[in-house]
Amino acid sequence: MKQYLIIISAFCFLCIVGGCHMPNKSESSISGQPSFSVYPIGRIEKQDGRCYIVIDKKYQSGLKGLEAHGYVHVVYWFDKNDTPEKRAILQVHPRGDKSNPLTGVFATHSPLRPNLIAISRCDIISIKDNVIEIKRIDAFDSSPVIDLKGDF
Amino acid sequence: MKQYLIIISAFCFLCIVGGCHMPNKSESSISGQPSFSVYPIGRIEKQDGRCYIVIDKKYQSGLKGLEAHGYVHVVYWFDKNDTPEKRAILQVHPRGDKSNPLTGVFATHSPLRPNLIAISRCDIISIKDNVIEIKRIDAFDSSPVIDLKGDF
Repeated sequence: MKQYLIIISAFCFLCIVGGCHMPNKSESSISGQPSFSVYPIGRIEKQDGRCYIVIDKKYQSGLKGLEAHGYVHVVYWFDKNDTPEKRAILQVHPRGDKSNPLTGVFATHSPLRPNLIAISRCDIISIKDNVIEIKRIDAFDSSPVIDLKGDF
Repeated sequence: MKQYLIIISAFCFLCIVGGCHMPNKSESSISGQPSFSVYPIGRIEKQDGRCYIVIDKKYQSGLKGLEAHGYVHVVYWFDKNDTPEKRAILQVHPRGDKSNPLTGVFATHSPLRPNLIAISRCDIISIKDNVIEIKRIDAFDSSPVIDLKGDF
């Protein structure tokens, strides 16, 4: 009995130390490919016909100076399409219209693509603390925002 | 002795079962935040003063129709800055010039930002199979390309 327990303990110890460490940026992967990690910095909020980008408070200081621009490029994540099947689609009928010829996703801004990155140039109405009001954006309410660029 | 071994075995078992499972797309994280996984679709190559985007063969069919555009928005990853320390920087002196006032990274296209997403609008010279020759790009040789958009 004691021997079995020693073996089990040693096995468990080796599993923990050797095999089950936390992922880092170069090894977290669904399919064995290397990948990079993207963290939401905020989200789109739509209320009463108005559009807002609500940035997490911890990133608010990154907005300094944005008020000098009349617009911002909003980079967000097509989170509703984040499945391996949808991310494997490489050709689409643009705007979902079958009369449009099949086109490579990289020639379009389709929400189906290997990396679900969306970019919209949006006019800024106001910036107050961590909330940017924009004129409009073709994104769903609650879409995760992953970057903003006043300039690129 | 036997009691200690039982306790150690139980502890190790709980660690393995409860704490050390493989990450998936919604939980892989450096800092405990949720994150999304981004996979390189190709890379920048610079040779003899010329610039190319070399797309992985598996994504080549996604380029169909891109030749109709004179330019492409290249989305790439500032991979040289992929450390938690650099990704925590929220304000910079634009263009690394200390005479420029500290500005939030979201008002700039600084390569220091929480998500290391770069966007460049590049003129297309030619497309042959999986290789796009572009006029120029302000990226390092071998930078990972994560998306292309003929339109956005």
